[in-house]
Parts: sequence; structure tokens; C-alpha cells
Amino acid sequence: MNIRLITYILGQIMRAEGAMMLLPLIFSLVYREDTVMALLIPAVALLLLGGLLTWRRPARRDRMSAKDGMIAVGFSWIVLSVFGMLPFMLGGYLTNPIDAFFETVSGFTTTGATVTGEVLGVFPEDLDRGIALWRSLTHWIGGMGVLVFVLAVMPQEEFKSARLMHAMRAEVPGPVATKVVATIRRSALIMYAIYIVLTLVEIVFLLFGNMSFYDALLHTLSTAGTGGFSNMNASIGAFDSSYIHWVITAFMLLFSLNFNVYYLILTRQVLRAIGSEELRWFLGIVLGAVAVVTLNIASLYDSIWIALRDAAFQVASFVSTTGFVTTNYDVWPSLSHGVLLLLMFIGGCAGSTAGGLKIHRCIILIKGAVSEMRSLVFPRQVRTVRVEGRTVEEDVVRNANGYFVLYFVIFAVSVMLVLVSGEGLITSFTAVSSCLNNVGPGMGEVLGVTGGGSFGGFSPWIKLLLSFNMLLGRLEIFPILILFYPAVWKGRKKSKKIDKNRKNAIDNQVTV
Amino acid sequence: MNIRLITYILGQIMRAEGAMMLLPLIFSLVYREDTVMALLIPAVALLLLGGLLTWRRPARRDRMSAKDGMIAVGFSWIVLSVFGMLPFMLGGYLTNPIDAFFETVSGFTTTGATVTGEVLGVFPEDLDRGIALWRSLTHWIGGMGVLVFVLAVMPQEEFKSARLMHAMRAEVPGPVATKVVATIRRSALIMYAIYIVLTLVEIVFLLFGNMSFYDALLHTLSTAGTGGFSNMNASIGAFDSSYIHWVITAFMLLFSLNFNVYYLILTRQVLRAIGSEELRWFLGIVLGAVAVVTLNIASLYDSIWIALRDAAFQVASFVSTTGFVTTNYDVWPSLSHGVLLLLMFIGGCAGSTAGGLKIHRCIILIKGAVSEMRSLVFPRQVRTVRVEGRTVEEDVVRNANGYFVLYFVIFAVSVMLVLVSGEGLITSFTAVSSCLNNVGPGMGEVLGVTGGGSFGGFSPWIKLLLSFNMLLGRLEIFPILILFYPAVWKGRKKSKKIDKNRKNAIDNQVTV
Repeated sequence: MNIRLITYILGQIMRAEGAMMLLPLIFSLVYREDTVMALLIPAVALLLLGGLLTWRRPARRDRMSAKDGMIAVGFSWIVLSVFGMLPFMLGGYLTNPIDAFFETVSGFTTTGATVTGEVLGVFPEDLDRGIALWRSLTHWIGGMGVLVFVLAVMPQEEFKSARLMHAMRAEVPGPVATKVVATIRRSALIMYAIYIVLTLVEIVFLLFGNMSFYDALLHTLSTAGTGGFSNMNASIGAFDSSYIHWVITAFMLLFSLNFNVYYLILTRQVLRAIGSEELRWFLGIVLGAVAVVTLNIASLYDSIWIALRDAAFQVASFVSTTGFVTTNYDVWPSLSHGVLLLLMFIGGCAGSTAGGLKIHRCIILIKGAVSEMRSLVFPRQVRTVRVEGRTVEEDVVRNANGYFVLYFVIFAVSVMLVLVSGEGLITSFTAVSSCLNNVGPGMGEVLGVTGGGSFGGFSPWIKLLLSFNMLLGRLEIFPILILFYPAVWKGRKKSKKIDKNRKNAIDNQVTV
Repeated sequence: MNIRLITYILGQIMRAEGAMMLLPLIFSLVYREDTVMALLIPAVALLLLGGLLTWRRPARRDRMSAKDGMIAVGFSWIVLSVFGMLPFMLGGYLTNPIDAFFETVSGFTTTGATVTGEVLGVFPEDLDRGIALWRSLTHWIGGMGVLVFVLAVMPQEEFKSARLMHAMRAEVPGPVATKVVATIRRSALIMYAIYIVLTLVEIVFLLFGNMSFYDALLHTLSTAGTGGFSNMNASIGAFDSSYIHWVITAFMLLFSLNFNVYYLILTRQVLRAIGSEELRWFLGIVLGAVAVVTLNIASLYDSIWIALRDAAFQVASFVSTTGFVTTNYDVWPSLSHGVLLLLMFIGGCAGSTAGGLKIHRCIILIKGAVSEMRSLVFPRQVRTVRVEGRTVEEDVVRNANGYFVLYFVIFAVSVMLVLVSGEGLITSFTAVSSCLNNVGPGMGEVLGVTGGGSFGGFSPWIKLLLSFNMLLGRLEIFPILILFYPAVWKGRKKSKKIDKNRKNAIDNQVTV
């Protein structure tokens, strides 16, 4: 393990976080808020500490193993959260560090689960504008992943593409970090450019809906990261405008698409973009779910169009794992609850800011399983899993399967631990589902009460456990879980045997 | 596909079922019951039809492919159920064929879910002795699998071991049909011998508890198959005897062990038997679950020993997927419900009569996932999954993963379909869990009401869907699902490419 390199990266992360904190700080200064210092102090601390850690460049430029990449990702997210929670504490809103940590992890992991609410006596409306904006900004930062950004903007000679690739594989959601263009650095920059442009477009659309600039910015940041934090306890339901509901529905879905699709459209490969298997599955799932929910809830509404609007909004909110709410869907029939619950496990596309298992991984898993079934009947046929017109390497299939198993093991163990604390079966089940899939709401009756429910009432241990779940979900288990694997911390590898096929598969993975 | 061979096998199955029906017929005659004809007519029909179909021996003795094995297994279970439901209909208890089919499938698949109850106005106590015994006998027949039995008792020259192996792999629960002895035929016979001896021992133990011979026989048959049918609506709770509760607890666990363990003990390889990894996991899970549940419910009981007794009984009932009930565990705290729910997904050991995912498969899945995680950090290390001290072939790991994925896909789709019929989320979730894992109870509030609840209130379509779930669970998905795969019904294979490693892996599988 290259400690020098990892601390250097952590320093860069801290500098980036400090710089990002300047945005809410400006708003805080403009509005002359009392909580300016709650943003200024952590921002300065981050910039200073970050500057200190990056003073000397790492000596060994040539070495960043997959292991180092995972460790760097794991630690950088913990560091991000520990410093990111300071504004909530210094602002006097969340005095218990565990509450502040939970809220911040929920922000960076784009979950949107909140401890604010009746139990703690702090509501989103109580937050000063600067602090509330920081809260939504954590979604935006966490959505695309900060480590990839930091590495992408560094000078070429300092970090080779291989390093970036390792970090990207660990941080960018989805079973494989899809290669947008030949140079991985360039592809990272293009992804950020698309991210920023889409964000600006949504702000403009919301401004047309007569939202204030501040509200438009804040809710766009939460939409872009598919997070779900709002400065209103009633979430998007506070805005009584069908236009705003439809705009946010559309952008929740747009941010759940694989960003590769936008790159293809930009480079005029529209046919290839539309031909994407993942895109077609995603659209099919969304349209099907909207149809089922609309029909299911129609009798509760006077107008089928309002039913369609609310159904589309909630479907988009759950499949994108954003967690915004416009209506009290607690009163909807069980079938709608079941559909929404299933959607949050499936999640959005790989290479987007959405959570859940991801459509791409689901396709690989299902095709792999069908090919397995077929092989029992035709044992002598060669088994191949083809996705997006290409054969998926066995490694990728195996990785998806391993992920699926660990996902359920973590799910079951977490639910058991929440149950030990005395919570009810449904509360435990939905709280873990919501956090592990980075959705957000999910307390109380099955799917949560309007406004996203609050996690404020859980015991401190459960809040830490759920924070851990959110990190596992956002970083897709492996980079976080690996930190608890003893062999990682040992100096030397136990075995040096090399499986050549395996080695080649890994070296080629970036071109998959 | 060898149709002649498959119909011949179906004929043998029918003869065997007809012969088995003679046992309850004897009781019916002894007790001079009105429903004698309800058993006599189907028994005679089965023996006649079976005799007709097996009149001519199949010409091509040398060919039974894996495909034929799967198809034979799938159809034989459907034929078993269609004829097995006749006594309930002819006896006038379940006049709707869908109800009778559900009850019979529930019997053969060792689920124990029942349609009897208030909705249909028929209670288990209403059944004549002969009919009630047939109901429990279906558990016993289905527990070990009838096709393997039929093939095992046929003359050696007629069916080669390879055929038996294919059938056994499809019918015997668990990720691999563990090879007990060198000859697969002999191993099948030994398994049946162990099954019969354990059954007789339990009857004797129950007779010592002052149970009547009839009750002892009936409840032993239900325990042996880990089914759960009782002739009392209150299930084992109707017997107010701690001795009986403990005996049944013990035998539910004994029938959930891999029968290989008994073979090893019989051949004085006690150390190897105790050294079994699956056995140690199983005992660890059971003891842990009993400890947690006992502590969790202790405050509800005057005596810790009664709490221990009830906890042990319910843990054994769920992990063995039997579904017997002695107490109203609805009033237990959520943690206990969570533990019991988890146990029924895990299930018993491979090569036993229990349902669920099976411990052996869970071990393979978890070790495979951990090895996958490790490989991300140490990409050049050779990956191996070792279970029971031996390396598990990649094929077996892949098969377990494919199974796991299809299991959850079927689970999700089934829950959605039950929801469409208008049932509640919890009812749908528990009904499918209960049927897919072959457990039995599970209606109403989370885990079911005392007496196992009733499935009588579901619509006919849902009863058929749940019957399908039970078959999928008992036959471990592939042999049933494959019947819906179009390529199976086409004459020729599409591709003749042979992957040599794969071919060897299959040829060697019997020695795994």
C-alpha cells in the first residue's frame, strides 16, 4: 500500500471539498446570515489541511494498485463526510455528531434520508439558506463522485490513466465503468461536463416555473445527484405546480440514464444511443411501472391526468432513487407500494448518479442465470452472456453475482441488527432498503410518510449502521467492505500464482 | 427427447403412487369409513394406467439425456399431483379442483400450506382418517423424491446410473447431489433406507409420548417430509406435552441434515460426519437462532424453559421449512419474527427433505462472493472456493449464482402477481415466501396465525400461481422453468460447439 500517495489524494479531496463549500458560503454572505462562520471555518480548515497534505507531491509516481484505489475511495468518502458535517454542527442544528454524520453521509451518498423532523425538533425549513444549500450540494458532489473528478483535473504526468481507472471502477456506479472515449481522463472530464450542463438546463427549466433562483438551484442539485434533500418538509409537494412536478420527473429520469448515452448523442451517434439495451430496458420498466401505478391509483383521483402526473413522479423518484415526494402515497393501494419498492431495488442505469442494483447489472444477472439454466439442458453448448451486442466477460458476470450475494447478506444482517434495537419488522426492512439503495424515505408504514419520514428517532448505533449502509450502497459494497478484510492490511500478498487468462481479463477490462 | 422413455417413467411413477395409496386405504377400511371409495378409485386407476404405460419396456435403453431427466422430473411431479388430489375431491372435501390441486401440490412439495379453514368451511379435523393420512403421506413421498426411488428399484440393466444421476440432480434438494457411495443407485437405496429407519424411530418415540398410533404415524410422515400437515387445526399445539414438542423439534432438525451424515456415521466415519462444514454451519445457525429467540421472548413466559422449548420448536420448524406450530408466535417481538423469516429463506442442508436455499448453497454463494471481493484487491491471485475441504468447481459456483438470481426474480414476479389480485403487501410477501421455500404457514400478519393460517381465501389464479411456486421451490427451479424454455422442445440443438473444460466438468460432476 502506498500511504504517501493515498494521503496526497486525501489532501486533494479536502481541497476540493473546501472549494465547493465556498458556493453556499457566498449565499450565506449575500443573505447576511448568522451561520456564516459554520461554513467559513470548515472551508478554511479543509483548504489549509488539504494544502498541507498536498504540499509535497508523492515520490513514487508509478504505483497505484487496484488495492490503493479502493482504499483511497473508501477513505476519501469518510473524510468528506467527517468534514462535511461540520456546518450542521457549528450552525447549531445537529448538536449530536452522529446525527450530523448521518445527515452528511446521506447527502454525499445521494440518499436523502434525513434526521430532521419532529423528534430532533429541527425541520428543513429551519436551516439557514447557506446551510441548506450545502446540504443539497453534498448530493451533487456525491452524485458523480469526487475522487474521479480530483484525479481527472490533475496534470497528466502526475497520475496515469491506470490510476484513474482503478478509482473510477470503485466510484462510478454500475458493474463496469463504461469507457466513453479512448482516454479515460478525457471521458471523466466529459462526464463532468455533461453533468454540469444538465444541471444548468434544469435550473433554467425550473426558473421558467417561477421558482426562485435559490430554490431552483437547491432542488436541481438534489435532483442531479438523485439525492432528495429539499428545504421543505413537504419536499416537492410544497410547490403546487404541475409544470414543476413534470420538470423534476423528467430530470430525475435524465440523471438516471447512463451518461454514455449523452456522449453518443453529442457525437451524433444517435442510433447507437437509442440502440442501447440498458436504455430500452430502463424505459420499458419506467413506462410499465407508470402505467400500472396510474391504473392502480386512478380511482383515488378526480382526473386521470393528475393520477398520471403523481404516478410518473413517484415512479421516477423511486427508480432514480432520488426520494422526492409530491403526494401522500401511503394511501395508495398495495400494488403501487410493491411496484415502488421493487423499483428502488432495481435502480437506475450504470454510469448515472442513481442507486440500487442498476439496470445494467440486473441484465447481466438475469442473462447469466438464463444461460446457466440453458446449460443444464444443453451441457455441451458454449455459454455466453451477451449484453449491448457484445459478449460479457466471465469476470464481469462473476463480479455481478458476487455483488448480488453480498448485497443480500448485508441487507439481511443490517435488518437483523436494526431489529435487535427493538424496531418493528417493516420499519427495519424499509429503513435498510432505503439506505442501502440510496433512496431516502422509508420510515413508518411500508414506504414512508409524506415528506420522506425522518430517521431522527433511531438510536445512535442504528444511525451509524444505516450510515454504513448508505456508504456500502453508494460505493457498491466492495471498496468499503474491503477495508475490513485483514489481508488488505498485510504487507505482502500470500500467493503469487498468476492465472494468465484472469490477468489478461483484468488488463483488458478498461476496454470492455 | 425420448418420449417413449418419459412416458414409461411416468407409468412407473403412477404405479408407485397407486401402491402408496394402499396404506391410507387400509386405515380407511379398518376404520370402516365412508370415504373408502375416494381412495380406492384413484388407487386402482393409477395402478391400471401405470400398468398400461409400463406394459412395453422402452426400446432405446441407452439414452436419457440431462434434458430428458429434467422433463421426466417436471412431468412426474405434475402427474403425481393431478392424481393425488382425487381423494380430496372424491371424498367431497375440496370440490373445486384448484383447491384440491393446491392442497396436493402443497403436500408433495412438503410445503404444508393448506386451503382448509374457515373460508372453505373444511377443517383438518373434518377429514376422515384415511384421507388425512394420505394428506400427510404426500409429504413423506415428496420429501425424498419419488422419481429417484422408482429408478433406483428398477433392474440395473434397464436404467444405467447416468440416467439416475440426471434425475437425482434434478430431484434431490441441494446444489449438488452429494455422492454417498460409488454407485449412485446404491446411494439412492441407502438414502431411502435411512429415511425409512428415521421415520420408524420417530413413530416409536411419539408412541412413548402416549400418542395414538394413528396420530404418531401421521405426524411422523409430516415431520419426515418436513411438510407440516396435521390433522389438527392447532397443529402440534393440540398436543399438550413438552415431551412431544421436543421429540418433534429433534426430528424436524434430524430430517434437515444431509443424509450423507447418517451414512458416514453408519459406516463408522463419525469424525468425517462431525467434520462436515455444512453440519457445523447448520448447528451454529440453529443454536444461535434458538438463543436469540429465547432471550427475545423470555419476558413473555413465566419459565425460561418453556420459552426455550417454544423457541427451539419454532426455530426448528422454520429452518427445516416444516411449518408446524405449537404457540401463537404472532405475539412474539419483531426480532423473533425477523429471525424466523430469515431461517425459512436459508432452509436446511442439501440432500435432506428441507426446503429454502439450503445451507450448502448459501456457503458456496458467500464464499464465492468473498473470493470475488478478494480478487478485486489481489487480481493476480488464483481464485478458489473451498467447501468441505475441497475446491468447488466453477460450474457449481456459477450454478448456485444462477439459482440465486432466478430465485429472486421468481420471488419478485410472484409477489407482484399476488399484489395485482388486490392482496396486501405483507400477505403477498409472506404467502410467496412460504410457498417458494416450501414452509407452509404465512398468511395474515407477517408470519401467520396459529394453526398455520389458510390459503383458502385466495383467488383461483393465485392458488395456481402459488402451486407453481411450491413446485419451483421443491424441484429447485430449473426442472420446472425449463419446461417453458422453447429451445427444449425443438428437435435439434442449435449449436454443437463443445467447450472441452465444460464437458469434462460435467462428466466429472458426479464425483464432486
